Amino acid sequence: MEPTSFVLFGATGDLAKRKIYPALYNLFVDRKLPPSFSLIGLGRRELSDESFRANVELSIRQFSRRGADNLSLIKPFLQAFRYSVLDISRKEDYKKLLQMIERREEELGISSNRLFYLSVGPEFFETIAANIQESGLGSPNGWKRLVIEKPFGHDLQSARDLNRKLSKAFTEQEIYRIDHYLGKPMVQKLEALQQNPVLNALWTNHYIANVQITANETVGVEERAGYYDQAGAVRDMFQNHMLQMLMMVASHIPNNSDSEMVRFKKKLVMEALEPLQKETVKASVIRGQYKEGMLQGKPAAGYRSEPGIDSASMNDTFIAAKLHIDDFFWRGVPFYIRTGKRMKEKSTRIVFEFKEPSITSQGSADADGKSPNLLVFEISPNEGITLQVNTRESQHKGDFKPIRIDFHESRNDVPEAYENLIYDALNGDPTFFAHWDEVELSWKWVQPILEAFEENLVPLYLYEAGSYGPAESDALLAKDGYHWWFDAKSEKEIETKRGEQQYAYHANY
Amino acid sequence: MEPTSFVLFGATGDLAKRKIYPALYNLFVDRKLPPSFSLIGLGRRELSDESFRANVELSIRQFSRRGADNLSLIKPFLQAFRYSVLDISRKEDYKKLLQMIERREEELGISSNRLFYLSVGPEFFETIAANIQESGLGSPNGWKRLVIEKPFGHDLQSARDLNRKLSKAFTEQEIYRIDHYLGKPMVQKLEALQQNPVLNALWTNHYIANVQITANETVGVEERAGYYDQAGAVRDMFQNHMLQMLMMVASHIPNNSDSEMVRFKKKLVMEALEPLQKETVKASVIRGQYKEGMLQGKPAAGYRSEPGIDSASMNDTFIAAKLHIDDFFWRGVPFYIRTGKRMKEKSTRIVFEFKEPSITSQGSADADGKSPNLLVFEISPNEGITLQVNTRESQHKGDFKPIRIDFHESRNDVPEAYENLIYDALNGDPTFFAHWDEVELSWKWVQPILEAFEENLVPLYLYEAGSYGPAESDALLAKDGYHWWFDAKSEKEIETKRGEQQYAYHANY
Repeated sequence: MEPTSFVLFGATGDLAKRKIYPALYNLFVDRKLPPSFSLIGLGRRELSDESFRANVELSIRQFSRRGADNLSLIKPFLQAFRYSVLDISRKEDYKKLLQMIERREEELGISSNRLFYLSVGPEFFETIAANIQESGLGSPNGWKRLVIEKPFGHDLQSARDLNRKLSKAFTEQEIYRIDHYLGKPMVQKLEALQQNPVLNALWTNHYIANVQITANETVGVEERAGYYDQAGAVRDMFQNHMLQMLMMVASHIPNNSDSEMVRFKKKLVMEALEPLQKETVKASVIRGQYKEGMLQGKPAAGYRSEPGIDSASMNDTFIAAKLHIDDFFWRGVPFYIRTGKRMKEKSTRIVFEFKEPSITSQGSADADGKSPNLLVFEISPNEGITLQVNTRESQHKGDFKPIRIDFHESRNDVPEAYENLIYDALNGDPTFFAHWDEVELSWKWVQPILEAFEENLVPLYLYEAGSYGPAESDALLAKDGYHWWFDAKSEKEIETKRGEQQYAYHANY
Repeated sequence: MEPTSFVLFGATGDLAKRKIYPALYNLFVDRKLPPSFSLIGLGRRELSDESFRANVELSIRQFSRRGADNLSLIKPFLQAFRYSVLDISRKEDYKKLLQMIERREEELGISSNRLFYLSVGPEFFETIAANIQESGLGSPNGWKRLVIEKPFGHDLQSARDLNRKLSKAFTEQEIYRIDHYLGKPMVQKLEALQQNPVLNALWTNHYIANVQITANETVGVEERAGYYDQAGAVRDMFQNHMLQMLMMVASHIPNNSDSEMVRFKKKLVMEALEPLQKETVKASVIRGQYKEGMLQGKPAAGYRSEPGIDSASMNDTFIAAKLHIDDFFWRGVPFYIRTGKRMKEKSTRIVFEFKEPSITSQGSADADGKSPNLLVFEISPNEGITLQVNTRESQHKGDFKPIRIDFHESRNDVPEAYENLIYDALNGDPTFFAHWDEVELSWKWVQPILEAFEENLVPLYLYEAGSYGPAESDALLAKDGYHWWFDAKSEKEIETKRGEQQYAYHANY
């Protein structure tokens, strides 16, 4: 790996503490940081290097996936850390920063490769990028990279505006847009798994009846009321994370593809996505908002009673949609996508439900007894792959009985999304970052939904906190003869069927 | 289920005690015996009904898969049991038996459905069948069935002779030839599993590189020296169990097939099996015999030192063979089959190794790093299905790393082979019994091997007790670029590759 100066804007912020420092430390422990590495933390507050390091150490102790036992390398790790105060609009501060970076580069005898990580609100992106440009922080003697996080705009137009501004300072190749779902190990595995010849044979509309992508959260708006009440589930989750997962499962990425090919194939998926019309959004999109209910045994307030939320808010905390990808592989296969807050359980998963030619022709197993084959990718909170194969004890007796073939990764072994992504950014591998084309096409596809919500062309269905969303979300699938996997209700039905019937005993011996 | 008289020849024998009584009891507990049921045990010894029942109870206590906790139903179960002495060559004894059966049928008010289970040596089959016929035991007011076990002859000619004789008393439809491997739950599942649309898509030479069928035993000849030294692994295991497993995995049985269709498809497999010539058997068949060695930490004697074995015996205790099925589905896919005694571990399994187009075109993963996709059916001692999917953490980094997706059935839930088979025989379902056509075609295919062994046209390779058979067995696969899964050696190689390399730590911070 090339020597790197890691310049972190927002070094005293929450994301830095919770995600970036623990990720960097874990990369260090795994020998995945560049051998020559310098980190410069930037913030509004005055802070000595020592205090900064102490804060970083504290955040690692608190948030690292590795236990307190694995902190033996923290001292050498922190040697790379320096701090500087910076007012993002003061040009002198950037000059000072440049001197500091150059001094460190000289000390370490390294070339000028600089990664600028903007762990700050999106309203500052433009200013910082422009100042980096003007102050000459992007040295000609090495590369420069910009790492930013969502939101990338709040609709198609604002996203385009933001991108135009960033483009003045950084080329598309230099911009690394983090969508942390793309950093999740199971999401990354999807690409390699669908290239596997065994799974590849099944990964088409020949065999697959429908695909379900779910990201359910139990949390409510938390401390983000101001942002969330303007964004809603559609901007906060759907336009980015959900559509990125869709691209990852639906793009048929050839073997040995470079990042350009991966992104090209993902773009093709977005281009093949059947567009919606504002007027007809309601036929395939369900908008929901949680009302009060019971969550894990405790009463939970309704959305409109949450602190900082408008008591007449029409904001969406839940969205379910049915999508069609009109390409060779997926024509005819509905993709059902849903995400919501204050749901019954936290779970992100992708389910492939296979077609069941054998069952429909089977007199004995009607719709009730049916338990189709499933391939399930559990993304969080746990990672796992399950192949549920529906079979019988033998052809001639017994009911259909699903066999679940499971794989589950032990929690501690799984690198966090930010580890994967920071590692890739340091290596200059953009594969698992959102390309501008993807972002733009996602906004473009979502735009009619935004407008339909805005104009109340889609009903807002209230659902109880602690449920699986509004009944209309279930009805969306039921119309096609399907249901959401694995909501507790369906699970319970399966269990009931499995339960052995007790019957009286009679014998004539 | 129809009322049945279960007439058991050899009621005091070992098989009855170890397998038949425990199976009947477990069927009883599971409410899978006919509500009207009468069992008449026959043996040479005089025995009262009470002593007979006591013996049966003892054998159930000792050999039932259900623990001693589950014996509460043993008293009502034993009510069905009667005993009669019988000399198989005394015609009067058959008359007496007929009276006894009729008396019981009258007592229970049931029709004359009679199942004759011959748990006796094959040398008695002919006499018993003839006497059943002559004595009028096969009543016209109900069905009659004959259940027999291997060996069905010791070569093609003797098998044909035996069948001709049995055919005088019973039609093919009335004869239930037990091959207890066909009763094993996982073997029975193979049929339903390969009809599953997901697995069915993969179950051909498009995707499968080779198939391996292994039945390794750790035991030696035990008390069967006299029989075994004449039979060898080829007659004891290969001609029947191994080829039956081959038929079960290789036949593409359509959905909703009746037993006639199942057997028709199995027969097609045998007919498509490329025949061997005596002179060239040695190119595709490895003959082995164990010599002394270490088994599970203890010294084990060589075969020729076993009690009752000829000290110059050329008998095969191991056989490995490469077979080709020349049909639409399997053309070009080698089937490797092996079975042996005194092997390192007890294990019966079927492994499908998938083709690896992705790996061969991948510069980074050469033959060394290769870990192909596997679909593994564990048949015994444990049941299980494993799908091993070879993948990487993501496309752009990391080595190939297999993911194992496992399913394992808990041991106590699995009905034993004899339960399944007796239940089927009582129900008149012949699907999982060996049809004469299968038996005849198996002997016909094996005949050149028998002759080549007899005439020593195939070398006899000695292998150490506690090994995986002779090195020539490994070489048989190595010639084609494969190896046996999952011999401990290969496993160890994989583990070594998985082990993380430790390296020194250098940093410039």
